[in-house]
Amino acid sequence: MNSSTGRKPTKRIRIGKVIIGGGFPVAIQSMTNTKTADVEATVTQIIALQETGCEIVRVSVPDCESAAAFKEIKAQIDVPIVADIHFKADLAVAAIKAGADKIRINPGNIGGPEDIRKIVDAAGTAGIPIRIGVNSGSLSKQVRARPNSMAEKLADSALENISLLEESGFDNIVLSVKSSDVLETVKAYRVLSGKTDYPLHLGITESGTLESGTVKSAIGIGLLLAEGIGDTIRVSLTAEPVREIDVAKQILQALGIRRFHPEIISCPTCARCEVDLITIAARLERHLKGCNKLVKVAVMGCVVNGPGEASGADIGLAAGRGKGVIFRRGLAVKTIDETDFFSELIKMVDEFEVE
Amino acid sequence: MNSSTGRKPTKRIRIGKVIIGGGFPVAIQSMTNTKTADVEATVTQIIALQETGCEIVRVSVPDCESAAAFKEIKAQIDVPIVADIHFKADLAVAAIKAGADKIRINPGNIGGPEDIRKIVDAAGTAGIPIRIGVNSGSLSKQVRARPNSMAEKLADSALENISLLEESGFDNIVLSVKSSDVLETVKAYRVLSGKTDYPLHLGITESGTLESGTVKSAIGIGLLLAEGIGDTIRVSLTAEPVREIDVAKQILQALGIRRFHPEIISCPTCARCEVDLITIAARLERHLKGCNKLVKVAVMGCVVNGPGEASGADIGLAAGRGKGVIFRRGLAVKTIDETDFFSELIKMVDEFEVE
Repeated sequence: MNSSTGRKPTKRIRIGKVIIGGGFPVAIQSMTNTKTADVEATVTQIIALQETGCEIVRVSVPDCESAAAFKEIKAQIDVPIVADIHFKADLAVAAIKAGADKIRINPGNIGGPEDIRKIVDAAGTAGIPIRIGVNSGSLSKQVRARPNSMAEKLADSALENISLLEESGFDNIVLSVKSSDVLETVKAYRVLSGKTDYPLHLGITESGTLESGTVKSAIGIGLLLAEGIGDTIRVSLTAEPVREIDVAKQILQALGIRRFHPEIISCPTCARCEVDLITIAARLERHLKGCNKLVKVAVMGCVVNGPGEASGADIGLAAGRGKGVIFRRGLAVKTIDETDFFSELIKMVDEFEVE
Repeated sequence: MNSSTGRKPTKRIRIGKVIIGGGFPVAIQSMTNTKTADVEATVTQIIALQETGCEIVRVSVPDCESAAAFKEIKAQIDVPIVADIHFKADLAVAAIKAGADKIRINPGNIGGPEDIRKIVDAAGTAGIPIRIGVNSGSLSKQVRARPNSMAEKLADSALENISLLEESGFDNIVLSVKSSDVLETVKAYRVLSGKTDYPLHLGITESGTLESGTVKSAIGIGLLLAEGIGDTIRVSLTAEPVREIDVAKQILQALGIRRFHPEIISCPTCARCEVDLITIAARLERHLKGCNKLVKVAVMGCVVNGPGEASGADIGLAAGRGKGVIFRRGLAVKTIDETDFFSELIKMVDEFEVE
């Protein structure tokens, strides 16, 4: 564990222009869900992801047509792009030739040592890393048949595949061990982190819709990150891919690992609240989503915690009946009417100079 | 730590008909945001909370009018009700007389030892517990001025107030130490859990809107629960109170601590997916929200993890191009058309007999 960052030191791995591990920021990734062969739709989605803050994009390459499209896609985007490969080693080789910045293979379904050797040779020549992406839903029959726990099966499968790659002289490796069960996933990553220094890609697989997937991912990824484990994260949601980036940013920001946008502290409101705080807070959050000024804004409904939180934030509002006190850097600066709450807070954020 | 449940043993405390601590289920609570003096609005909101699964409801009592209303509210509802008191000990006494099942006081603002003694006497006579609810936004001036960390300030404030209550012979106590910072909150609860066996009420205070509040609460509450800490939880969201119950249930279910509704495993979809899985999963989640049958349903978009997850669930769908294979208890039972996915899954859930 690095004592200043609280993060486990891992090997530095380059994915295009992004470096993960070795003290570099925990990178955010997502995956397209367009048909890869539809170059226009895929490029449009990748650009939307990129603009939301996605730093690495994964694209599935299920057939030769997709591998051909991969090259065209790569030419039109700026973000590093990872080819997701299952079943066919030849598709991995084709994707590498098409310019993939990284290859993800699934040891449960990619074939035997010869298939892996083929991919390793191509990745080695291209100088790109391989992620060994183990998944509870697609373990090989042999691994599934073992009597140990799912967490051990996942970690062992990753470790055995590391050996296969290392035997071929390849050590440009990233690892993941995902399960749809949160605690199983956490256990598997803990085991893996204790046994290897390759960087870890964290995620809870098949975690469900926006609501349940957000909770499962926040707990699982959050718990591991809080222990110093994890070098890149992917929040899997059965939802529009850009939503995954929003949640990923929230997780990293909540843990103080990275900051992306203003932090809004707002109370849940209660009988003491005399203003429509829910609407103001939601409007403020939407407005500030694209703002990368790292300020902390407190929007509080009453005198219980209002002045305390408002004065502890960079900019604060402690509301009362139809009026509110505005704080800047801990000092009350003015009293304003409820109708001006939103516009005043926005103006204060605009004018605030981060030191 | 109890070796069978993995939870820290705590003192058993009764809040009306609900018991927390001592191995009882982690109870879910929320708080009304209506005017307490508006009996009709408050009762309506409490009933909505109760129907969503809220097991303890807190109601703010900021004035005498609210204390009077409290009695009328109590007469119309079934769920245990907690009076939230700040600044005035007399209001706590009035709320206890009005039938409160528990009192929450904030040591940072409730006054001196005499005020606390007054509340303790009334609670002791009524036989109801007191929650010492410490909050980073409303620590007393003396506590704030100390040179230690916020986590220590929070825990110390709770511990000092335990002593005050115990000196009066009162030990019917619940504790909380909330901060709007996730890691600070986690640290404070860890310290507190190590030093006392009173049950802990977990929450991240002022955690923000539905989106950011869900992530902060899932990480903070989830991390503590995963360590065996916590006897009752409140997810604070600047949103409609019933949303807090949904998120609380998701947190407890994700950690396998309690189960409330069917578990939906669904993939994030990618280029391999040939059906509109996002819509199907969202529709299924909405439909099954009120269903308390504890089945695991996998809704998967392709052959990579589809058959694995679908056969690992109670009921599964592994979709392909326009068709999908339905699994029950690990066995493929039929192939159906995409148009029948939703109706077939619903039917399977209805017919499934949980063993």
